Amino acid sequence: AIVKYWGKRDEVLNLPATSSISITLSRLKTEVSVSFDERLREDEVFVEGERANEKTYGRVVAFLELIRAKTKVKMFARVESFSNFPVGLGLASSASFFAGLTLASASALSAEFTFQELARIARLGSGSAPRSLLGGAVEAVAGTSKDGSDFEVLQILPEERVPFALLVVMVESKGKAMSSRDGMNLCKNTSPYFHRWLEYNQELVDIARRALLDGDIKTVGEVAEASCFAMHGCCMSAKPPLFYWAPNTLSVIEQVFEMRKEGVLVYVTIDAGPHPVLLVPSDLVPIVQDRVSKQKGVLDIIEERAGQGAKVL
Amino acid sequence: AIVKYWGKRDEVLNLPATSSISITLSRLKTEVSVSFDERLREDEVFVEGERANEKTYGRVVAFLELIRAKTKVKMFARVESFSNFPVGLGLASSASFFAGLTLASASALSAEFTFQELARIARLGSGSAPRSLLGGAVEAVAGTSKDGSDFEVLQILPEERVPFALLVVMVESKGKAMSSRDGMNLCKNTSPYFHRWLEYNQELVDIARRALLDGDIKTVGEVAEASCFAMHGCCMSAKPPLFYWAPNTLSVIEQVFEMRKEGVLVYVTIDAGPHPVLLVPSDLVPIVQDRVSKQKGVLDIIEERAGQGAKVL
Repeated sequence: AIVKYWGKRDEVLNLPATSSISITLSRLKTEVSVSFDERLREDEVFVEGERANEKTYGRVVAFLELIRAKTKVKMFARVESFSNFPVGLGLASSASFFAGLTLASASALSAEFTFQELARIARLGSGSAPRSLLGGAVEAVAGTSKDGSDFEVLQILPEERVPFALLVVMVESKGKAMSSRDGMNLCKNTSPYFHRWLEYNQELVDIARRALLDGDIKTVGEVAEASCFAMHGCCMSAKPPLFYWAPNTLSVIEQVFEMRKEGVLVYVTIDAGPHPVLLVPSDLVPIVQDRVSKQKGVLDIIEERAGQGAKVL
Repeated sequence: AIVKYWGKRDEVLNLPATSSISITLSRLKTEVSVSFDERLREDEVFVEGERANEKTYGRVVAFLELIRAKTKVKMFARVESFSNFPVGLGLASSASFFAGLTLASASALSAEFTFQELARIARLGSGSAPRSLLGGAVEAVAGTSKDGSDFEVLQILPEERVPFALLVVMVESKGKAMSSRDGMNLCKNTSPYFHRWLEYNQELVDIARRALLDGDIKTVGEVAEASCFAMHGCCMSAKPPLFYWAPNTLSVIEQVFEMRKEGVLVYVTIDAGPHPVLLVPSDLVPIVQDRVSKQKGVLDIIEERAGQGAKVL
């Protein structure tokens, strides 16, 4: 995410308390297949070929219940998903999964939802999923209505106009971050900065949208860092302190600041996990990739571009 | 500092915007000698036997001007200081120096200041210096008056009643942090959290004072971490982002959280530099010291106790 989603205004409807902007990626992908079947006696959920753990299973079943309620379908479903990247590491795997699940379910049932209806359904699975339905740079508009009827997702830029590449830097870490859901709750309940964070981030959305439309990479980068560090500052000031960063996360941040001092246009953002994502103009990718790959504690760098939204295969 | 001083309400009078609490240390020491001499044609300042750099020289001369104004003395002075620890690394060397300089100047001139007058003079040299005039656990009360006449420092606990030791963990770092003075200014002018930080930290002072009087190490430790992470969260959210931490700072933080999960009563705080300071009950010092000394990137651990305030030698 360029401008983070961090905080809910309604727990049950999974409504965000602040708007957010993200870039849909082209290579990190999740394929989700859904088949509703009269012969099933319960929902079956497989992730990477294995039965989902209890937590994931619970979230998927709750989501399927909603789809069934909306479509009046009574059948259980078999859900299978495969990702080409490690899941549960703060790389938006649940956003990717629930965007796919929403589209696959609607398609399997030939349900006629409008796009914004689909977005609201996807949101019930994961707050970040609606943005992944669209390609390019996407804004999720939080809205203010109690029932969430004014929540929507809008494409700011199509993928071909997003003026930078994204380097996902996988760093060594113990990987024991709290889930986003629990982390947001902890911040809301205990961080002295939570209220101010929401106001501030909403201001950043407006600046980032404008800068994206203007192709102003410098401002987009500065806003991305501002949103990132304000979010993590909010997390760290929670009680108990919530750290998503590993020591190597900080090494990469330091390196990005150094490169920038040397005049290289590169910015860093970090979601609710340890792995930094660098925003880099396409022509600088080789230089930055070379530098960062030599940094101690960097395991892998995934070179990404803005990509298409979820689609039916 | 247990509860940080971060932010000024008056730049010229160097008045803090929030109260703070620190423990005066027993072993990290600075000896300052001052002699006013009619034969000198300008102030002379030596740090560790060498002429002070321009910045330090300027701060010391400005301070001496104040002393001269208050005492009607016209002579220039020769100032020499020696510390038994590295200066300028976020280990409160300037607090230590200006506390010593205040006391030595007053003594050299046989000036009859009350203690709170001395504290206000020390503050003009460094905002943290007044606390170092007293031993044990010390509170600097920010006050609200325009002229700073209600600023004062109070001893909360004498050194022998401070119920924990302090381990100063020196970590590898590039050591290029911004001075506290500039950092506070940057936060005040650009951090979305600065205003909330001040309110929150003032609440923490009241909780920490109570907990110190009660000998409640757990609460003191929790409050110390809350103040630390809120301060650094405020710094990180400034523009440009201000990081005092090195990657190894984060390694030590992680290790402290791990030890606590195992039931070891240890807490961490970090001033405006990369080196963590651990709060540990005296009987746990050997265990914690052993664990932390094995952590990669830890160069040295200075075992400290609460100590006496500044005194004339």
